[in-house]
Amino acid sequence: MEIDEKQARARLHRTNGSLPPVTTTLGGVFLSLGGGTLEAQYVGAPAFLNPAGQVQGGMLCAMLDDVTATLVTSTLAEDEHCATLSLNTSFLRPAKPGCLVGRATLVRRGRGVCNVNGELWQDDKLVATASAVCMIVAR
Amino acid sequence: MEIDEKQARARLHRTNGSLPPVTTTLGGVFLSLGGGTLEAQYVGAPAFLNPAGQVQGGMLCAMLDDVTATLVTSTLAEDEHCATLSLNTSFLRPAKPGCLVGRATLVRRGRGVCNVNGELWQDDKLVATASAVCMIVAR
Repeated sequence: MEIDEKQARARLHRTNGSLPPVTTTLGGVFLSLGGGTLEAQYVGAPAFLNPAGQVQGGMLCAMLDDVTATLVTSTLAEDEHCATLSLNTSFLRPAKPGCLVGRATLVRRGRGVCNVNGELWQDDKLVATASAVCMIVAR
Repeated sequence: MEIDEKQARARLHRTNGSLPPVTTTLGGVFLSLGGGTLEAQYVGAPAFLNPAGQVQGGMLCAMLDDVTATLVTSTLAEDEHCATLSLNTSFLRPAKPGCLVGRATLVRRGRGVCNVNGELWQDDKLVATASAVCMIVAR
């Protein structure tokens, strides 16, 4: 299934009216949607650091979960929501405190299940990748 | 490799002297270490919630990353640290705001790589599981 971008933007606009608490915590800001890819910016805050002074991997997972779920949400009807079943993440480079850019791409949008890939970039370097399986649930 | 629990507790004691910022953010408190299993408690805070009012899956990943990395850290020498390479997480049930108990079990402690399983429990129900691959790095 292709993303109807006009509809997706309308849905995101409705959703962005009240950002989920976790998106606010992650400093999430919607950047763009086009060509089946959604981009959002996050902030690796001092409160997210591990003992090595890097953004903890699990907090990168939270950003990847947010960007992939936001892309799935952009494809949903108003009476549907997205429940993530699994998130498999690889950490490629340490992430330092500061801005990160998340990018989600739809692999397959089935009727009940959605497969999405996520990437997290910092200073034009790929720091983490993820593969998410999401279930589409009627409210 | 078996965990030398006396040594592990000593290492954890040193580490707990200054909790990593992310552990504090997650409300992490060390509970126990025994039989090769480490338990810690976390708090699903209101700031971690997704649009459905549940603790966002990625924030559960952050707790699972913390508990698995803490277990690996308990096996390290003072001049070594743990770098997580991958974290594969399955979400079994929604997690509501409040206490969660994390449990990490060592699957294999190699010289350079460590495989650890993590579980996250709420009200005696398993809400998420994870498999972590960690690299042991000399500082």
